[in-house]
Amino acid sequence: MKFRVGVISGDGIGPEIVKEAKKVLDKVGSEFGHEFEYEEILMGGCSIDATGVPLTDEAIEAAKASDAVLMGSIGGNTSTSPWYTLPPNLRPEAGLLKLRKALNLFANLRPAYLYEELKEACPLREDIIGDGFDMMIMRELTGGLYFGDRVTEERNGVMTAVDTLTYNENEIRRIAVRGFDIAMKRRKKVTSVDKANVLDSSRLWRKVVEEVAKDYPEVSYEHMLVDNCAMQLVKDPAQFDVILTENMFGDILSDEASMVTGSIGMLSSASLNETKFGLYEPSGGSAPDIAGKGIANPIATILSAAMMLRYSFDLDAEADAVENAVKQVLKDKYRTIDIMPQEAERAGEVTQVGTSKMGDLICERI
Amino acid sequence: MKFRVGVISGDGIGPEIVKEAKKVLDKVGSEFGHEFEYEEILMGGCSIDATGVPLTDEAIEAAKASDAVLMGSIGGNTSTSPWYTLPPNLRPEAGLLKLRKALNLFANLRPAYLYEELKEACPLREDIIGDGFDMMIMRELTGGLYFGDRVTEERNGVMTAVDTLTYNENEIRRIAVRGFDIAMKRRKKVTSVDKANVLDSSRLWRKVVEEVAKDYPEVSYEHMLVDNCAMQLVKDPAQFDVILTENMFGDILSDEASMVTGSIGMLSSASLNETKFGLYEPSGGSAPDIAGKGIANPIATILSAAMMLRYSFDLDAEADAVENAVKQVLKDKYRTIDIMPQEAERAGEVTQVGTSKMGDLICERI
Ligand SMILES: CC(C)[C@H](C(=O)O)[C@@H](O)C(=O)O
Ligand SMILES: CC(C)[C@H](C(=O)O)[C@@H](O)C(=O)O
Repeated sequence: MKFRVGVISGDGIGPEIVKEAKKVLDKVGSEFGHEFEYEEILMGGCSIDATGVPLTDEAIEAAKASDAVLMGSIGGNTSTSPWYTLPPNLRPEAGLLKLRKALNLFANLRPAYLYEELKEACPLREDIIGDGFDMMIMRELTGGLYFGDRVTEERNGVMTAVDTLTYNENEIRRIAVRGFDIAMKRRKKVTSVDKANVLDSSRLWRKVVEEVAKDYPEVSYEHMLVDNCAMQLVKDPAQFDVILTENMFGDILSDEASMVTGSIGMLSSASLNETKFGLYEPSGGSAPDIAGKGIANPIATILSAAMMLRYSFDLDAEADAVENAVKQVLKDKYRTIDIMPQEAERAGEVTQVGTSKMGDLICERI
Repeated sequence: MKFRVGVISGDGIGPEIVKEAKKVLDKVGSEFGHEFEYEEILMGGCSIDATGVPLTDEAIEAAKASDAVLMGSIGGNTSTSPWYTLPPNLRPEAGLLKLRKALNLFANLRPAYLYEELKEACPLREDIIGDGFDMMIMRELTGGLYFGDRVTEERNGVMTAVDTLTYNENEIRRIAVRGFDIAMKRRKKVTSVDKANVLDSSRLWRKVVEEVAKDYPEVSYEHMLVDNCAMQLVKDPAQFDVILTENMFGDILSDEASMVTGSIGMLSSASLNETKFGLYEPSGGSAPDIAGKGIANPIATILSAAMMLRYSFDLDAEADAVENAVKQVLKDKYRTIDIMPQEAERAGEVTQVGTSKMGDLICERI
């Protein structure tokens, strides 16, 4: 089969890590008899430099024309990069938000789990880690505070800023359905997170989730307040299977969850719409401080490509092959610098490799 | 001196823990020659049961008439308590929100630190704990999503809920000033947390904080995005001194930070207005599951009373005496059940005591 992959290399370490993911896709292609055609799409800081805006209409069209989009990372150092002297709607991140909305990518899936081999990188105590944990954050991505009306203006001589948090029942229902669907393929538990003791939008959220839950009698579900969830992620992450939540809470909790695993360089994500189309990107940022040094961890991007194979192209065996190759490379004790053991004596047991070598090693195992 | 203390015992474990804090205040009174006069104020579930509403106007007046308010906790089990079948504005928590607004308690201080003696309760790995950590979350408490307009209504036949997040420059300035003031008495570092890459209110927040920072040349400050802060609290909590943030982010981050310490039963909080007046309460919840069993940890409430002595009554020596008594009781190896060591062999080294006994032991050390 032939697939058109839109590629947003982006800024910082983006181009380096995307290059390795393409290498892996090509290896999958030759092993399994598929062809991946890449179309470079400009977004973020590099697009600002080239076109003056973080995302052009042509770029949106190119993304729409592809079967799925693979992304590296966008943005730079917010204190030193000139991109951040531009008005907010012209900064790199505005491109990403615009693309999410334009492609209607309302369902953001962020797996967070503990790699047995990287247990020591986990910031939690061993007895809390226990047998490990494996959760999926299902974050609503095109509603809420991110896309509400906003204004900054003088009111009675006082500068005032307003953002609005809006959700309607349809927006909540479609993400809730996604959350319960995915729970059915996992451990059949949904934790819906909101702030229903304060927000109207959360109370509507809770009501709609309860309606949706009725269609999934096999799934056990619970409601949890966002402040409590922020605690529980540290106290007992193993309790979670699927965490279902709105845009801003999902932003905060998914980052907390990925840090709790200790291996943010390993975590992929998918942003999906109603069709098979999706945007796939690593959970980590553009890490401008290490860009160009050839030391960035490409695994999260490679695993994002695996998610693309699975969710957008229905190539489950191929996705498994990539995921297993990643597991094998860890078992074979290869590490990029971000996942090296902390203690010097342990470091001797593993081999530190750069971005490109890590890509090669994974390809060899496919 | 004579002080009028409004007392909100509240629900769940509230009455038990408040009783111990009063015991301690009385001991301070007799040792240092002060008199504390208590006035019981109804709020939360117990007020609903007695009056039909979670906070009456008389209760507000009683709070206003006192020099400071000491609170236990309010609310019950949200799934089983009949209080949660009431409309949102009649539930227990609505009383607390109403009181915060009525008394203009805009500055919420939540210390989060590692007790050397309770290091093992910390969910983080020893090398991350390092020499420990000690931060103060300064949360804005009367603005933002908590107090914005909200509505739930049909729009084109689709049920839609809207909450609004509003901040004006004056609201931001007064909390920022508090944050920098307190940093001056601490390690002189402020981390201002926002989501300036998305929200107008955060961009105004950042601008005003920068203006305020100019008046504090000795304080080093930085801006941090809320998603990053949620990660950093787990990765390296020692980096923080004062975290300054808006209401909803502060709700989430302060709970995360207190769980990171592992000793939520030890953490106090203060909610202050422009005067010396304040509301003092433990960080933990009403824990209805253990209410009435005499096992709740009263220390957070006792330390909240110490904060009251310090911030509202300017009784620094008295506050020190209470805080030192708490430290001593831990050194003397007394523990309530929530802070008992996990390992059986270690448990033998300490003495487990109940709520009332813990209060007595602290009194003895004042
Ligand atoms: C870059 C930023 C706007 C974005 C977000 O907040 O959604 C990022 O943090 C993410 O989580 O993908
Ligand atoms: C009870 C609830 C409304 C409250 C809040 O969200 O502010 C609580 O979580 C807190 O942090 O004091």
